[in-house]
Amino acid sequence: MSLRYFEDFAAGQTFRSAALRVDAEAIKRFAAEFDPQPFHLDEAAADRSLFAGLAASGWHTAALTMRLCVGSDFRPAGGILGIGGELTWLKPVRPGDELRAEIEVVETRESRSRPGHGVVKVRIATLNQDGETVQTFTPTIFVERRPG
Amino acid sequence: MSLRYFEDFAAGQTFRSAALRVDAEAIKRFAAEFDPQPFHLDEAAADRSLFAGLAASGWHTAALTMRLCVGSDFRPAGGILGIGGELTWLKPVRPGDELRAEIEVVETRESRSRPGHGVVKVRIATLNQDGETVQTFTPTIFVERRPG
Repeated sequence: MSLRYFEDFAAGQTFRSAALRVDAEAIKRFAAEFDPQPFHLDEAAADRSLFAGLAASGWHTAALTMRLCVGSDFRPAGGILGIGGELTWLKPVRPGDELRAEIEVVETRESRSRPGHGVVKVRIATLNQDGETVQTFTPTIFVERRPG
Repeated sequence: MSLRYFEDFAAGQTFRSAALRVDAEAIKRFAAEFDPQPFHLDEAAADRSLFAGLAASGWHTAALTMRLCVGSDFRPAGGILGIGGELTWLKPVRPGDELRAEIEVVETRESRSRPGHGVVKVRIATLNQDGETVQTFTPTIFVERRPG
Protein backbone atom coordinates (compact mmCIF):
# COMPACT_ATOMS: atom_id res chain seq x y z
CA MET A 1 0.00 0.00 0.00
CA SER A 2 1.55 3.28 -1.06
CA LEU A 3 0.84 6.73 0.35
CA ARG A 4 -1.90 8.77 -1.28
CA TYR A 5 -1.34 12.44 -2.00
CA PHE A 6 -4.10 15.05 -2.01
CA GLU A 7 -4.40 14.68 -5.80
CA ASP A 8 -5.17 10.95 -5.37
CA PHE A 9 -8.33 11.54 -3.33
CA ALA A 10 -11.81 12.14 -4.76
CA ALA A 11 -15.30 12.24 -3.28
CA GLY A 12 -16.93 8.82 -3.18
CA GLN A 13 -13.77 6.76 -2.63
CA THR A 14 -14.03 4.27 0.21
CA PHE A 15 -11.37 2.55 2.28
CA ARG A 16 -11.68 -0.31 4.75
CA SER A 17 -9.81 -1.45 7.83
CA ALA A 18 -9.20 -4.86 9.32
CA ALA A 19 -11.30 -5.92 12.35
CA LEU A 20 -10.31 -5.68 15.99
CA ARG A 21 -11.93 -7.54 18.90
CA VAL A 22 -12.77 -5.68 22.12
CA ASP A 23 -12.94 -7.69 25.33
CA ALA A 24 -14.19 -6.83 28.83
CA GLU A 25 -10.68 -6.50 30.22
CA ALA A 26 -9.73 -3.87 27.61
CA ILE A 27 -13.01 -1.99 28.19
CA LYS A 28 -12.36 -1.83 31.95
CA ARG A 29 -8.67 -0.96 31.57
CA PHE A 30 -9.37 1.99 29.25
CA ALA A 31 -12.20 3.18 31.50
CA ALA A 32 -10.06 2.97 34.64
CA GLU A 33 -7.56 5.35 33.05
CA PHE A 34 -9.79 7.73 31.10
CA ASP A 35 -13.49 7.30 31.86
CA PRO A 36 -13.89 5.79 35.34
CA GLN A 37 -17.68 5.58 35.48
CA PRO A 38 -19.44 2.49 36.89
CA PHE A 39 -21.12 1.43 33.60
CA HIS A 40 -17.66 1.07 31.98
CA LEU A 41 -16.02 -0.65 34.95
CA ASP A 42 -18.44 -3.06 36.58
CA GLU A 43 -20.97 -5.48 35.08
CA ALA A 44 -23.54 -5.18 37.91
CA ALA A 45 -23.49 -1.36 37.88
CA ALA A 46 -23.67 -1.42 34.07
CA ASP A 47 -26.79 -3.61 34.21
CA ARG A 48 -28.54 -0.89 36.25
CA SER A 49 -27.48 1.95 33.91
CA LEU A 50 -28.95 3.27 30.63
CA PHE A 51 -26.48 0.92 28.89
CA ALA A 52 -28.15 -2.18 30.43
CA GLY A 53 -24.83 -4.05 30.45
CA LEU A 54 -21.08 -3.36 30.29
CA ALA A 55 -20.25 -0.94 27.46
CA ALA A 56 -17.01 0.61 26.25
CA SER A 57 -16.36 4.29 26.82
CA GLY A 58 -17.18 6.23 23.66
CA TRP A 59 -13.60 7.52 23.79
CA HIS A 60 -12.37 3.93 23.74
CA THR A 61 -14.43 3.29 20.61
CA ALA A 62 -13.05 6.50 19.10
CA ALA A 63 -9.44 5.59 19.95
CA LEU A 64 -9.85 2.05 18.56
CA THR A 65 -11.36 3.53 15.39
CA MET A 66 -8.23 5.68 14.99
CA ARG A 67 -6.12 2.56 15.41
CA LEU A 68 -8.13 0.83 12.69
CA CYS A 69 -7.82 3.84 10.35
CA VAL A 70 -4.04 4.08 10.81
CA GLY A 71 -3.75 0.40 9.80
CA SER A 72 -6.15 0.70 6.85
CA ASP A 73 -5.48 1.38 3.15
CA PHE A 74 -6.53 5.05 3.60
CA ARG A 75 -2.86 6.14 3.97
CA PRO A 76 -2.89 9.92 3.31
CA ALA A 77 0.59 11.43 2.75
CA GLY A 78 1.70 13.24 5.90
CA GLY A 79 -0.46 10.99 8.10
CA ILE A 80 -4.01 11.14 9.40
CA LEU A 81 -3.91 14.61 10.87
CA GLY A 82 -7.19 16.39 11.42
CA ILE A 83 -8.73 19.38 13.10
CA GLY A 84 -11.82 17.53 14.34
CA GLY A 85 -15.39 16.96 13.20
CA GLU A 86 -18.79 15.71 14.27
CA LEU A 87 -18.58 12.61 16.48
CA THR A 88 -21.68 10.50 17.11
CA TRP A 89 -22.12 7.35 19.20
CA LEU A 90 -25.05 5.31 17.91
CA LYS A 91 -24.89 1.98 19.74
CA PRO A 92 -22.98 0.61 22.75
CA VAL A 93 -19.80 -1.39 22.12
CA ARG A 94 -19.98 -4.62 24.14
CA PRO A 95 -17.37 -7.15 25.30
CA GLY A 96 -16.64 -9.49 22.40
CA ASP A 97 -17.59 -7.01 19.68
CA GLU A 98 -15.39 -6.95 16.59
CA LEU A 99 -15.02 -3.45 15.22
CA ARG A 100 -13.92 -2.29 11.79
CA ALA A 101 -13.83 1.09 10.11
CA GLU A 102 -15.11 2.26 6.73
CA ILE A 103 -13.75 5.57 5.48
CA GLU A 104 -15.58 7.46 2.73
CA VAL A 105 -14.21 10.60 1.09
CA VAL A 106 -16.94 13.27 1.23
CA GLU A 107 -15.15 16.29 -0.23
CA THR A 108 -11.70 17.50 -1.31
CA ARG A 109 -10.50 21.09 -1.61
CA GLU A 110 -7.31 23.17 -1.66
CA SER A 111 -5.98 24.47 1.66
CA ARG A 112 -5.63 28.23 2.00
CA SER A 113 -3.98 28.06 5.41
CA ARG A 114 -1.42 25.30 4.82
CA PRO A 115 0.71 25.56 1.67
CA GLY A 116 1.61 22.21 0.17
CA HIS A 117 -1.53 20.59 1.62
CA GLY A 118 -5.08 19.94 0.58
CA VAL A 119 -8.16 19.38 2.71
CA VAL A 120 -9.96 16.03 2.61
CA LYS A 121 -13.23 15.64 4.48
CA VAL A 122 -14.13 12.03 5.26
CA ARG A 123 -16.90 10.12 7.00
CA ILE A 124 -15.58 7.32 9.17
CA ALA A 125 -18.15 4.71 10.19
CA THR A 126 -17.22 2.20 12.91
CA LEU A 127 -19.16 -1.05 12.49
CA ASN A 128 -19.57 -4.09 14.69
CA GLN A 129 -19.64 -7.76 13.66
CA ASP A 130 -23.36 -7.51 12.84
CA GLY A 131 -22.75 -4.63 10.41
CA GLU A 132 -24.34 -2.12 12.81
CA THR A 133 -22.78 1.34 12.89
CA VAL A 134 -21.68 2.08 16.46
CA GLN A 135 -19.97 5.43 15.77
CA THR A 136 -19.54 7.98 13.00
CA PHE A 137 -16.92 10.72 12.79
CA THR A 138 -16.61 13.25 9.95
CA PRO A 139 -13.17 14.83 10.29
CA THR A 140 -11.42 17.36 8.12
CA ILE A 141 -7.90 16.09 7.34
CA PHE A 142 -4.85 17.85 5.87
CA VAL A 143 -3.12 15.81 3.16
CA GLU A 144 0.22 16.63 1.46
CA ARG A 145 0.13 17.58 -2.22
CA ARG A 146 2.18 15.49 -4.64
CA PRO A 147 5.71 16.92 -4.71
CA GLY A 148 7.03 18.69 -7.80
CA MET B 1 -20.04 17.31 45.85
CA SER B 2 -23.51 15.87 45.37
CA LEU B 3 -25.06 14.61 42.16
CA ARG B 4 -26.99 17.09 40.04
CA TYR B 5 -30.31 16.09 38.54
CA PHE B 6 -31.66 17.45 35.25
CA GLU B 7 -33.67 20.07 37.19
CA ASP B 8 -30.43 21.41 38.74
CA PHE B 9 -28.89 22.39 35.40
CA ALA B 10 -29.46 25.69 33.61
CA ALA B 11 -27.82 27.40 30.63
CA GLY B 12 -24.83 29.51 31.63
CA GLN B 13 -23.65 27.37 34.56
CA THR B 14 -19.94 26.55 34.46
CA PHE B 15 -17.97 23.76 36.11
CA ARG B 16 -14.21 23.29 36.40
CA SER B 17 -11.87 20.34 36.72
CA ALA B 18 -8.52 19.93 38.40
CA ALA B 19 -5.37 19.98 36.22
CA LEU B 20 -3.50 16.97 34.84
CA ARG B 21 0.07 16.96 33.49
CA VAL B 22 0.87 15.14 30.24
CA ASP B 23 4.41 13.88 29.73
CA ALA B 24 6.22 12.49 26.69
CA GLU B 25 6.04 8.92 27.98
CA ALA B 26 2.23 9.05 28.29
CA ILE B 27 1.92 10.65 24.83
CA LYS B 28 3.99 7.87 23.26
CA ARG B 29 2.28 5.08 25.22
CA PHE B 30 -1.23 6.19 24.17
CA ALA B 31 -0.08 6.63 20.57
CA ALA B 32 1.55 3.20 20.44
CA GLU B 33 -1.78 1.61 21.38
CA PHE B 34 -4.29 3.81 19.53
CA ASP B 35 -2.66 6.26 17.10
CA PRO B 36 0.73 4.88 16.02
CA GLN B 37 1.81 7.70 13.73
CA PRO B 38 5.41 9.02 13.77
CA PHE B 39 4.53 12.54 15.02
CA HIS B 40 3.00 11.03 18.20
CA LEU B 41 5.79 8.49 18.77
CA ASP B 42 9.16 9.99 17.88
CA GLU B 43 10.60 13.46 18.51
CA ALA B 44 12.71 13.61 15.33
CA ALA B 45 9.81 12.53 13.08
CA ALA B 46 7.53 14.97 14.89
CA ASP B 47 9.96 17.83 14.20
CA ARG B 48 9.59 17.16 10.47
CA SER B 49 5.75 16.99 10.59
CA LEU B 50 3.06 19.70 10.52
CA PHE B 51 3.19 19.54 14.35
CA ALA B 52 6.85 20.73 14.39
CA GLY B 53 7.50 18.74 17.58
CA LEU B 54 6.06 15.83 19.57
CA ALA B 55 2.31 16.24 20.06
CA ALA B 56 -0.34 14.12 21.76
CA SER B 57 -2.90 12.27 19.66
CA GLY B 58 -6.13 14.26 19.57
CA TRP B 59 -7.81 11.14 20.95
CA HIS B 60 -5.44 11.22 23.90
CA THR B 61 -6.45 14.83 24.57
CA ALA B 62 -10.10 13.83 24.26
CA ALA B 63 -9.70 10.86 26.62
CA LEU B 64 -7.82 12.98 29.19
CA THR B 65 -10.56 15.60 28.94
CA MET B 66 -13.11 12.92 29.79
CA ARG B 67 -11.00 11.91 32.77
CA LEU B 68 -10.94 15.54 33.93
CA CYS B 69 -14.71 15.91 33.51
CA VAL B 70 -15.45 12.72 35.47
CA GLY B 71 -13.40 14.11 38.36
CA SER B 72 -14.91 17.60 38.17
CA ASP B 73 -17.87 19.14 40.04
CA PHE B 74 -20.12 18.67 36.96
CA ARG B 75 -21.53 15.38 38.39
CA PRO B 76 -24.76 14.75 36.44
CA ALA B 77 -27.02 12.07 37.97
CA GLY B 78 -26.67 8.85 35.98
CA GLY B 79 -23.13 9.76 34.90
CA ILE B 80 -21.65 11.61 31.95
CA LEU B 81 -23.35 9.69 29.18
CA GLY B 82 -23.61 11.35 25.80
CA ILE B 83 -24.46 10.67 22.18
CA GLY B 84 -21.61 12.74 20.76
CA GLY B 85 -21.08 16.26 19.47
CA GLU B 86 -18.71 18.52 17.56
CA LEU B 87 -15.07 17.88 18.45
CA THR B 88 -12.39 20.42 17.48
CA TRP B 89 -8.63 20.36 18.06
CA LEU B 90 -7.24 23.87 18.11
CA LYS B 91 -3.65 23.57 19.30
CA PRO B 92 -1.17 20.70 19.79
CA VAL B 93 -0.78 19.24 23.29
CA ARG B 94 2.95 19.05 24.11
CA PRO B 95 4.97 17.08 26.67
CA GLY B 96 4.75 18.92 30.00
CA ASP B 97 1.42 20.59 29.26
CA GLU B 98 -1.05 20.79 32.15
CA LEU B 99 -4.60 20.36 30.97
CA ARG B 100 -7.85 21.29 32.67
CA ALA B 101 -11.47 21.31 31.53
CA GLU B 102 -14.15 23.98 31.73
CA ILE B 103 -17.71 22.80 31.22
CA GLU B 104 -20.43 25.31 30.32
CA VAL B 105 -24.11 24.41 30.10
CA VAL B 106 -25.41 25.63 26.73
CA GLU B 107 -28.99 24.34 26.76
CA THR B 108 -31.33 22.06 28.71
CA ARG B 109 -34.50 20.38 27.44
CA GLU B 110 -36.79 17.44 28.21
CA SER B 111 -36.02 14.10 26.58
CA ARG B 112 -38.70 12.57 24.38
CA SER B 113 -36.82 9.32 23.78
CA ARG B 114 -35.69 8.52 27.34
CA PRO B 115 -38.32 8.74 30.08
CA GLY B 116 -36.95 9.90 33.40
CA HIS B 117 -34.14 11.82 31.71
CA GLY B 118 -33.49 15.31 30.41
CA VAL B 119 -31.06 16.49 27.77
CA VAL B 120 -28.21 18.81 28.72
CA LYS B 121 -26.01 20.25 25.98
CA VAL B 122 -22.60 21.45 27.20
CA ARG B 123 -19.47 23.01 25.74
CA ILE B 124 -16.31 21.47 27.17
CA ALA B 125 -13.15 23.50 26.63
CA THR B 126 -9.78 21.87 27.35
CA LEU B 127 -7.17 24.46 28.31
CA ASN B 128 -3.42 24.28 28.79
CA GLN B 129 -1.29 25.96 31.47
CA ASP B 130 -1.17 29.18 29.40
CA GLY B 131 -4.96 29.38 29.28
CA GLU B 132 -5.01 28.45 25.58
CA THR B 133 -7.91 26.27 24.43
CA VAL B 134 -6.48 23.10 22.87
CA GLN B 135 -9.81 21.31 22.27
CA THR B 136 -13.53 21.96 22.38
CA PHE B 137 -16.32 19.37 22.48
CA THR B 138 -20.05 20.13 22.56
CA PRO B 139 -21.80 16.93 23.59
CA THR B 140 -25.44 16.24 24.25
CA ILE B 141 -25.77 14.41 27.57
CA PHE B 142 -28.68 12.52 29.16
CA VAL B 143 -29.24 13.39 32.82
CA GLU B 144 -31.66 11.70 35.25
CA ARG B 145 -34.63 13.72 36.48
CA ARG B 146 -35.03 14.22 40.22
CA PRO B 147 -36.95 11.21 41.60
CA GLY B 148 -40.51 11.61 42.90
